[in-house]
Amino acid sequence: MNNLLQEDERLDDLQINGYQIIQHPDKFCFGMDAVLLSGFASVKEGERVLDLGTGTGILPILLEAKTEGKHFTGLEIQPESADMARRSVMFNHLEEKIDIIEGDIKNASEIFGKASMDVVTSNPPYMTNHHGLKNPNDAKAIARHELLCTLDDVVRETAAVLRQRGRCYFVHRPSRIVEIFEAMRKYKLEPKRMRLVYPYVDKEPNMVLIEGVRGGGAQLTVEAPLIVYKEPGQYTDEIYEIYGLDK
Amino acid sequence: MNNLLQEDERLDDLQINGYQIIQHPDKFCFGMDAVLLSGFASVKEGERVLDLGTGTGILPILLEAKTEGKHFTGLEIQPESADMARRSVMFNHLEEKIDIIEGDIKNASEIFGKASMDVVTSNPPYMTNHHGLKNPNDAKAIARHELLCTLDDVVRETAAVLRQRGRCYFVHRPSRIVEIFEAMRKYKLEPKRMRLVYPYVDKEPNMVLIEGVRGGGAQLTVEAPLIVYKEPGQYTDEIYEIYGLDK
Repeated sequence: MNNLLQEDERLDDLQINGYQIIQHPDKFCFGMDAVLLSGFASVKEGERVLDLGTGTGILPILLEAKTEGKHFTGLEIQPESADMARRSVMFNHLEEKIDIIEGDIKNASEIFGKASMDVVTSNPPYMTNHHGLKNPNDAKAIARHELLCTLDDVVRETAAVLRQRGRCYFVHRPSRIVEIFEAMRKYKLEPKRMRLVYPYVDKEPNMVLIEGVRGGGAQLTVEAPLIVYKEPGQYTDEIYEIYGLDK
Repeated sequence: MNNLLQEDERLDDLQINGYQIIQHPDKFCFGMDAVLLSGFASVKEGERVLDLGTGTGILPILLEAKTEGKHFTGLEIQPESADMARRSVMFNHLEEKIDIIEGDIKNASEIFGKASMDVVTSNPPYMTNHHGLKNPNDAKAIARHELLCTLDDVVRETAAVLRQRGRCYFVHRPSRIVEIFEAMRKYKLEPKRMRLVYPYVDKEPNMVLIEGVRGGGAQLTVEAPLIVYKEPGQYTDEIYEIYGLDK
């Protein structure tokens, strides 16, 4: 199997189903945001799931392990990341459950068809500010900054590929909640559930998890705070659980 | 002084400056939401402050004690509540700092003039649903349900009475955050700061505190969680501090 691994890449254990993922330490590696999103998203038996901007495929692979979804697709614009994701799918023998498609989020509804999905997940670029970026073609820069797509693009295409009452799950920065809600309502994705992720119980949150329902009615449930660390270096029980790690 | 107190009314100690407030146990009494809003709102030296739907005047009285604001006005539509608030102002000898005006939130910008205030606070009715209310003329019902004004009315009048860059502070239910943000942006009040109030560290929040700036730029700061109870019956240190109580 190791011929799936290219120079300087490494295999990381996902702590679930024995799955591993191929990553390149100099390029964009998945972070806690992707893992928390996989714990927040709810995928029901038989559902079709699309991940917009899948990177190395972490979300489809984790969701395949954690849920009874029927089929998972990851869309990724960067050829190297898409190739790595595809090799991770092969490594874990998930070719029948997961497709990795190289393509642009901005065309997602053209690629997959309107109302074709039950669930959409996305961990999109967080940052609008890309002045002074040393290398805007860099894989990390593309994953983190809104260089190739904007928040509006992600929300618009999410709404377009979702069936009526389909659900979407985003992880983003709390500083952009107002814009996210506005964009979601613009495209008839009603925010229904939100959870804030606080690094410590007395600190500002650094991530927000949002569930939207296409055509849903107005009423938001804000969930209990998700606290990451009990003390420096020690995760809370809930984080250990989401990661599938022993304490 | 006690001739200011009418039958069945009581005097409650506000734990600050020796101030007391007149309340009637069968009518609407102030809750933790008003106290937390008084701790969240920032009023600078010399500023003019308006509280929309002031009830028994709790917010102007607490803000007069806690801040260096120049003048405070409470607007209240219910004659009995406005009268009680006025007597509390007299009881605390605050007639030169606090005005209580009987009137309708929907006309606030007519009553006070456009761009006449530096700060607006409001603890508006939370509930839209008023089907099946036994007595929609009841003081409690009017304070809690959107019978005499809607969220849109409160936000519109807030924006109208605030000067450019003036600030507003609302306390509301988390379930309505999406609507609140939408209404605020509609009237050019940008949400700039938000804090969620969680009764316990592992429970859903039951209040949200929001700061908006008239004409502000997009960027929300979400603050550390405000946790109310350490364990049943025991407040956290921060709550004791906001209430001015000894542990």
